[in-house]
Amino acid sequence: MSAEPAFNRPALEQLLGKRFFYAPAFSLYGGVAGLYDYGPPGCALQANVLEIWRRHFVLEEDMLEVDCSIMTPAEVLKTSGHVDRFSDWMCKDLKTGEIFRADHLVENVLEARLDGDKIARNAPVETKAEKDEKKKKKAAKVTAIRLDDATAQTYKEILAQIDNYSGPELGELMRTHQIKSPETGNDISEPVVFNLMFSSSIGPTGQFPGFLRPETAQGQFLNFKRLLEFNNDRMPFASAQIGRSFRNEISPREGLLRVREFTMAEIEHYVDPLKKEHARFSEVASYKLKLLPASVQLQGKTELLEISIGEAVEKKIVDNQTLGYFLVRIHMFLTKVGINPDRVRFRQHMKNEMAHYACDCWDAEIHTSYGWKECVGCADRSAYDLTVHSNKTGEKLVVRERLPEPLVEEKLQLEINKKVFGPRFKKDAKAVEEYLASLDETALESLKSAHDSTGSFSVSFNDSSFDITKDLITKFEKATITTHIREFTPNVIEPSFGIGRILYCLMEHVYWIRPEGEQRGVLSFPPTVAPTKCLLVPLSTNDVFVPVLKKVSSLLRRSGVASKIDDSGASIGRRYSRNDELGTPFGITVDFDSIKDGTVTLRERDSTKQIREKLETIVELVKDMCDGRTTWAGVSAKYPAFVSQEQETNE
Amino acid sequence: MSAEPAFNRPALEQLLGKRFFYAPAFSLYGGVAGLYDYGPPGCALQANVLEIWRRHFVLEEDMLEVDCSIMTPAEVLKTSGHVDRFSDWMCKDLKTGEIFRADHLVENVLEARLDGDKIARNAPVETKAEKDEKKKKKAAKVTAIRLDDATAQTYKEILAQIDNYSGPELGELMRTHQIKSPETGNDISEPVVFNLMFSSSIGPTGQFPGFLRPETAQGQFLNFKRLLEFNNDRMPFASAQIGRSFRNEISPREGLLRVREFTMAEIEHYVDPLKKEHARFSEVASYKLKLLPASVQLQGKTELLEISIGEAVEKKIVDNQTLGYFLVRIHMFLTKVGINPDRVRFRQHMKNEMAHYACDCWDAEIHTSYGWKECVGCADRSAYDLTVHSNKTGEKLVVRERLPEPLVEEKLQLEINKKVFGPRFKKDAKAVEEYLASLDETALESLKSAHDSTGSFSVSFNDSSFDITKDLITKFEKATITTHIREFTPNVIEPSFGIGRILYCLMEHVYWIRPEGEQRGVLSFPPTVAPTKCLLVPLSTNDVFVPVLKKVSSLLRRSGVASKIDDSGASIGRRYSRNDELGTPFGITVDFDSIKDGTVTLRERDSTKQIREKLETIVELVKDMCDGRTTWAGVSAKYPAFVSQEQETNE
Repeated sequence: MSAEPAFNRPALEQLLGKRFFYAPAFSLYGGVAGLYDYGPPGCALQANVLEIWRRHFVLEEDMLEVDCSIMTPAEVLKTSGHVDRFSDWMCKDLKTGEIFRADHLVENVLEARLDGDKIARNAPVETKAEKDEKKKKKAAKVTAIRLDDATAQTYKEILAQIDNYSGPELGELMRTHQIKSPETGNDISEPVVFNLMFSSSIGPTGQFPGFLRPETAQGQFLNFKRLLEFNNDRMPFASAQIGRSFRNEISPREGLLRVREFTMAEIEHYVDPLKKEHARFSEVASYKLKLLPASVQLQGKTELLEISIGEAVEKKIVDNQTLGYFLVRIHMFLTKVGINPDRVRFRQHMKNEMAHYACDCWDAEIHTSYGWKECVGCADRSAYDLTVHSNKTGEKLVVRERLPEPLVEEKLQLEINKKVFGPRFKKDAKAVEEYLASLDETALESLKSAHDSTGSFSVSFNDSSFDITKDLITKFEKATITTHIREFTPNVIEPSFGIGRILYCLMEHVYWIRPEGEQRGVLSFPPTVAPTKCLLVPLSTNDVFVPVLKKVSSLLRRSGVASKIDDSGASIGRRYSRNDELGTPFGITVDFDSIKDGTVTLRERDSTKQIREKLETIVELVKDMCDGRTTWAGVSAKYPAFVSQEQETNE
Repeated sequence: MSAEPAFNRPALEQLLGKRFFYAPAFSLYGGVAGLYDYGPPGCALQANVLEIWRRHFVLEEDMLEVDCSIMTPAEVLKTSGHVDRFSDWMCKDLKTGEIFRADHLVENVLEARLDGDKIARNAPVETKAEKDEKKKKKAAKVTAIRLDDATAQTYKEILAQIDNYSGPELGELMRTHQIKSPETGNDISEPVVFNLMFSSSIGPTGQFPGFLRPETAQGQFLNFKRLLEFNNDRMPFASAQIGRSFRNEISPREGLLRVREFTMAEIEHYVDPLKKEHARFSEVASYKLKLLPASVQLQGKTELLEISIGEAVEKKIVDNQTLGYFLVRIHMFLTKVGINPDRVRFRQHMKNEMAHYACDCWDAEIHTSYGWKECVGCADRSAYDLTVHSNKTGEKLVVRERLPEPLVEEKLQLEINKKVFGPRFKKDAKAVEEYLASLDETALESLKSAHDSTGSFSVSFNDSSFDITKDLITKFEKATITTHIREFTPNVIEPSFGIGRILYCLMEHVYWIRPEGEQRGVLSFPPTVAPTKCLLVPLSTNDVFVPVLKKVSSLLRRSGVASKIDDSGASIGRRYSRNDELGTPFGITVDFDSIKDGTVTLRERDSTKQIREKLETIVELVKDMCDGRTTWAGVSAKYPAFVSQEQETNE
């Protein structure tokens, strides 16, 4: 699938800047790559998308929302594996010291060579906009050099699995394919690991290291016990969190798509590892998704598989029902906020690419003018997180479940004589006791045979050996053990949303240019996510319109519809055009007739069609359309179209 | 004003922990002072309070909401003055290295001595709860030693203005009053400055220092130009931001009242320095507030002045109308979310205590069991911030306003000959030109007299002197200058809310213990801020109740009322008691009669009184009470009380 041919990214970017959807942060000070500020429309858009997220996930699925600390002690992230493994591979131009992200460098250079090959073969050349884009990205220079077919094929295969290479492999690729610093042609250093967390220190002594969280997940895991208790110990359940996370990207690029500080929305859904079925799976089983499984990518291909989630789980393409259920819910959410569902695919992670904790992982990727971009991850993190935190802190993070029927087993029981044990092993006594208690049935069987023949046995652990003599053992025999409780560490299914990325993709998907007249940009947000729902325009700045304006405005406020008055001196056409750029779906015009008969004109953004009714009726209609109870199609079918002279002249 | 006599802080804290309103973050890892996680009820409470804030300020006053970067380049905070001045005074136990915040140490020790004095004089001694509290705070040990009257008086005066001392003054106080390390009795170091910002570095080179923002204000100032343009260049206007800020407190204490990471809500209201009147001031002029002016505090007193804001501004107690308007709006907001208005006062900052940028500042302080606590600051920051950023970056941060009548002035005009100027001064040419352009009328007058007598003059700046000879000057004479535009740097009025502090105060204010039976805690949140609005309880776990439950639940959801079902096996009384602790204002019971006739029981939390009506009626009533259209008093006056047997037995 290729980008919509009519899409003009520079024009969109100009609009988003001019209307202050977002802007580079600290631009007065020259700016900082990867940091952005949201202006009023961007901020409202984000709030609306988050509100829909909260309703779609937290309320509808009865999740437990939490709000945890961003500043995180280093020890926590050491345990979770982030200190050691949350990193990218970085390399340097050996002469200028310029820094590159290793995988991006390889991608960049090979893409440029393939482009050069295309030119040399007289294949269709890129558009001007595409060229400008590459320049902006500091892409490697394209030179028209024809590659032999085998080389071109190799490059394509490398690019199809670029996310799958380790640092040393990337270094190997650079040597094999003679990859140099794109601007200087200098040699490049071997890729080295660069940890992506921002570090700081907590408290006045400087001796307590901390990091800004790179994801909101750890705070949720650390509160597992409290949340389970809050949920009256019932399983399965999910916690959720919306908040900022931070990643010190090596070289942020592509606007909101790769930033150093971002709002995430994450769900941790805890399931019994033996019961990964989902109670509501049947409701979604026939829902179709476009999948790109790991196996396809490893063949260097990108063909999508369109398949119902029911079949995908049955065929084990998607690991389990709960994971599958969330893939569908994610797709529904994206569609609800206005993402074009035809431009969404789910790509499975390849093994090397998968986060260290995950046992299966699918990314919801959204198609943009930059290509397919990961916007939501959905990983089965297995029992990894709860297990490592539990092991490290000694706090049990488990679910205790009463068994429907008690479990009766014959098991070897080893009972020790504590009175003798303590004095004999002194400081080691506890460790030896714990070691013995930790042995499984097989290990006990083998000790038992030694015990049965000699009356004693010895054990070794931690480089020490201990003789367990006869006097230390009070009982060592088979006994019937009845278990009423099953204890298990839940697995975690984690849907994780990058909100800024979704917002950017949404803005690309809803952007178009009105062909008539002066080529005006329009952002066709669905009414539910539009920053402002309704624009109020008096015909002119004449004070006679003020009472009706105030009445409409207060009726809309009481209905909970966000509206803005534009009583500037600009022509109505110009004012509407400004609001097309802000994505405001409805406009109400107050004119001289409004004062006489209480009617107003309602204009719809995308069609620019109008109707005219009593202002109370119009307010009701706007409210119903914003709440999704009806649509403009429904409204315009019911009410006659209205054509004003003003409108015709100015639009 | 003293704490409510019946207030039991340990019991409240136990409840808040048990119901997971909030909990120390990272407690599995031993916790980190000053970092907290909000559980589901705390998170919902916060979201509701923020939603009211947004409606009360952003929507009602048409503010421009933004969402800016937390990570901030050091240069920005150097310019704003935070790198040099955003700090507290810290001192050390010279032997153990234990660290204290200097003002807290002095406060702590002097309070302990005054307590000892009280005991020695047989004055009423503190309660056990107060004692426990002090122990927890590691307060200085109280020894019953009688002070002479003059000393006791001196201590009281020091405590009344403890926020007004500089570091050296605190050091002086420690020496004069023999203040030692409370637990060890060791000597204490001189107070040294400790900067309260968390530092980090941005990007892969480690050479770009940054800080986590200590307030959300700077992001708003840096976007001033974009926001003014977004507002169609109209003044006055305000921006607003809700978000996290970070302060690396020396020794956080008092729970949510002093933390290292917190949610703020800040407004930057830009006004013309010559027009600090407020258009809506007349609406609030008669609103009465309790004020504690700086002049009263400097006398070592704390008497409150109850006065209408109109009179306070007229008497110049409060500097201007806009500041006064916001003090009232702040008070209204606090009352709206459930803070007891009798326990709110506005304390003016004393000169030394005032932030470096402020020209007047009032704190809304809320009374708690810890004493009066600053929860909202309202400062007039004058033109400080815009000026320093403008000076540093060379970007004009001003408002240009068309004058109603052009300003006609006779002014000296100095015109230079650029052709000669460049070659003569070479690299200095631009600097000399700019210097001449920057001179005011008086300076020009004095150069003019030299010029008139000799035909030339000389100027000195930056340790250099330059001769401006005759050939360099093309014109130097009075001319009539007509100005159509006035250019000015707006002043900023900044109301700044610490959301966590407000939440804690609120929880103290609405907490009480039901005296009957087993002394059950209740949190009487107003319905608008309550985490959950309505509890649904079936009489038992019997499946026959499910259809009615589902119906009520879906009706409530459609009405936008957050509800929870509690179908656990616990008795109805126990389930209601759990929800009293969660502050859920309403409860609906579904019983066997509900299945027969579609009626349900509605219980109100504070009175535990009930009514019984058709379920549709009950849902309507709950919605109306949650939206503030009616109250329980209104409802219970209209519908007959209902007494169930179940209720009587269990409550």
